[in-house]
Amino acid sequence: MSQNKYEHGGKVWDGVPDRWMDFSANINPLGCPSVIRDEIKKAVQYIGYYPDADMKSATRNIADYLGVDKSCVLPTNGGISALHHIVQTAKPQRVIILAPCFVEYRHIAEVGNAKVVVLPLLNGRHSVELPIDDIKSVARAGDMLIICNPVNPIGHAFSKDEIINCIEIMNSCGGYIVIDEAFIDYRPENTMTSYIEDNDRLIIAGSLTKMFAIPGVRLGYICAKNNTIDSMKSVQMPWVLSCFASAATNGLKDINEFVERSIESNNVNRRALKKRLEELGVYVFDSCANFLFADLKDVGVTAKRLAMRLREENILIRDCSNYDMIDECYARFAVKSKHDNDSLLKAIKGVLDDKG
Amino acid sequence: MSQNKYEHGGKVWDGVPDRWMDFSANINPLGCPSVIRDEIKKAVQYIGYYPDADMKSATRNIADYLGVDKSCVLPTNGGISALHHIVQTAKPQRVIILAPCFVEYRHIAEVGNAKVVVLPLLNGRHSVELPIDDIKSVARAGDMLIICNPVNPIGHAFSKDEIINCIEIMNSCGGYIVIDEAFIDYRPENTMTSYIEDNDRLIIAGSLTKMFAIPGVRLGYICAKNNTIDSMKSVQMPWVLSCFASAATNGLKDINEFVERSIESNNVNRRALKKRLEELGVYVFDSCANFLFADLKDVGVTAKRLAMRLREENILIRDCSNYDMIDECYARFAVKSKHDNDSLLKAIKGVLDDKG
Repeated sequence: MSQNKYEHGGKVWDGVPDRWMDFSANINPLGCPSVIRDEIKKAVQYIGYYPDADMKSATRNIADYLGVDKSCVLPTNGGISALHHIVQTAKPQRVIILAPCFVEYRHIAEVGNAKVVVLPLLNGRHSVELPIDDIKSVARAGDMLIICNPVNPIGHAFSKDEIINCIEIMNSCGGYIVIDEAFIDYRPENTMTSYIEDNDRLIIAGSLTKMFAIPGVRLGYICAKNNTIDSMKSVQMPWVLSCFASAATNGLKDINEFVERSIESNNVNRRALKKRLEELGVYVFDSCANFLFADLKDVGVTAKRLAMRLREENILIRDCSNYDMIDECYARFAVKSKHDNDSLLKAIKGVLDDKG
Repeated sequence: MSQNKYEHGGKVWDGVPDRWMDFSANINPLGCPSVIRDEIKKAVQYIGYYPDADMKSATRNIADYLGVDKSCVLPTNGGISALHHIVQTAKPQRVIILAPCFVEYRHIAEVGNAKVVVLPLLNGRHSVELPIDDIKSVARAGDMLIICNPVNPIGHAFSKDEIINCIEIMNSCGGYIVIDEAFIDYRPENTMTSYIEDNDRLIIAGSLTKMFAIPGVRLGYICAKNNTIDSMKSVQMPWVLSCFASAATNGLKDINEFVERSIESNNVNRRALKKRLEELGVYVFDSCANFLFADLKDVGVTAKRLAMRLREENILIRDCSNYDMIDECYARFAVKSKHDNDSLLKAIKGVLDDKG
C-alpha cells in the first residue's frame, strides 16, 4: 500500500476493474457518450490498416472541437504523451512546477534531463495562490513553466488574467509556458486556446480522457501556434494514434449538449459532496473540476490510512502523499454519481466514527 | 506522388481504406486471428478505466509468447515506439544503419540527436552482404548498430552466427546492438531472444503488427536483459498501451497453429509471386519475410512510375526511392493472397506491356 514517487490513481487492475468504486481517477461518471463509443466500436474494422500517418481526420476533429485552426493541433497518444512530447521537443533546461501538482510533471522533466524547480501553490494549509512573484524571480531563459488549469489535485481554476500574467513573465525571460488543460472541459471559459496565435511561447496540452470517459483509449493533443506544431510534428513518430483513438475524435461533432449536461451534473454532485464532507469535519477546497481536494488533518486521519480502510470496502481514493509540498493528510476524491458519492460518504463516516 | 524523406507505405486513407489493394504495407493476408480480434472487441468494456500502469498482463503475455522471462519485456505503443524508446533511453552518440533499411531508423536517430552512419547492405545491385568489416572499422564506444532481421525492405535473413559476430563487435567497442525483429515471426528460428540474458548490449525491438495484422492497434515490445528493461521502464510514460493493445496480448496464447499456417501460406504465395515476377523480367531478391524486394531496372521502369500507374488501378506498392543507398528502380511488394497477387501481376504486366 505504500506509494512510490510516480504512483497514480486508477489502479483498478487488482482483480476485475468493476470490483472497485473508483474515486481515485477523475472520469466523467456519465460515461463515454454513445456517439463516441459507437465510433470506437466501429473502428475494429480498421485494425488491419496502418493509421493515417498524417492524422488528418483526428487533427481536424480535435481542432474543430477546440475552435482553432487545424494547423494548431497535434494529436497525441494521451494527455501525458502531449506533455512528454512538449518537453522532449522544447528541451527546457529547467521545468518550473507549482506544487502540489500532477506527479508526472516531475517525471517528464527528469526524463527530459531538465532540472525541476518547485514553487508552492498553497499559502498555509488551505489558501491557493498563484506564486506570481516567485515565478518572476526564478524564471529565466530556457525555463518551462507548467500550470495545470483547473489545477489537479486542487480543482481551483486560475483566471485568464492570472495566466496572461504568467505568459508575459515567461515571454519576457525567454522561456516557455505550458498550460495543462486536462480538466478544462469542466471550465471551458478559462481555456487559453484563443491566445496561441499571438504567443509563440504558449503551449497547451490537453486530454480527451476525462470529460469523455475514455482513459483506456489514449487520446490527447497539443495546441499551439502553427510553427510550434510544425516543429513538434516533425519529431513525432508516425502512427501514435490507434485506429480507436482516431475514430473517437469523429464523435466530437455535436457533443456540446453532452458536455453541458456533464458540467451541470458535476456541479450539482460536487457541491453536495463538498457540503457533506464538510459536515463530517473535513476541510474541502473550492473546486470547479470533477474532483475535490481535501485536508483530513482536523478529522485526525492520514490519507494513507483512510485509503487503506476504504479499500477494504472496495472503494479507491487518491492518497496524495506522493505529491510535492504537502503532508500526508491530503486526499483527492473524484466526483461521481449521487449514488456512488453517498457510498463514499457513508464509508468515510464509518472510518471516522470507528476512530473516535 | 513525390515522396518525402520519411514517407511510408500503407497510405490507404485517401478515400476509404478498402478502396485499395495494398501491397505497400506488409500485413498478414490471413488477417487478424479471431482469438485476438475477439479480445480486442471485448476490450471496449475497458475504455473507461486507466490501463494498468504496470502493464502486468501485457508484459506476461508477450513474454510467454516470446519464451522469455517477464522481467525481460517492456510493451510499447507499436514497434516504432520500441525503437524510439531504445534510442531515447540509451542515448547513442551515433547510430549505424545498414541501407537500404526502414526509413524511420534515420528519423529516430536524428530525433535522438545521434549522428547517422550509413553502411551499405548491397554489394552491387543484387548481392546482400552484412558489411562486417565496415562495421568493425567504424564502430566505437557510444555507437548503436541497428540491424533488421529479416531485413526490411529486402526480406533476407541474417544467420544467428552473423548476428553474434555483430554482437561481439559492439560488445568489444562499448556500443549497443539493436535487432529489429519486426518480421521475425516469419523466421522464428532466427530470433535472438535467447541471447539477451548473456548480452548486456543486445536489445531486441519487436512488433505484433505484421503477423497478427493489427497495425491499427499499436502494439510492440522491447526485449532485453532485465536490468536494461528496468532502466527503460523507469523512463517510460505510464499508460502507453490502450486497453485494446493490452487486450490483444491475451490472444497470444495458443496462437502457434495460426503462426505456422501463416508462415506456410506465405511461403507458398511468396515463391509463386517471385517466380511470376521473374517471368516478367523483374529481378527479385530472395526473401523469407512476407514481402518481396525487386529491382525494376531491367524492365525499364522506375518504382515511382510503376507505383503511379498501379495506383490508377487502386493498387498500392512501396516505391523505395526514399530509402538510403539505392536508386529509383527498387520497389517492395507485400505477399498477399493468391487472388490479390494475381491481380498485382496482371496489373504490372499491363504496365510493362504498355511501355514496350
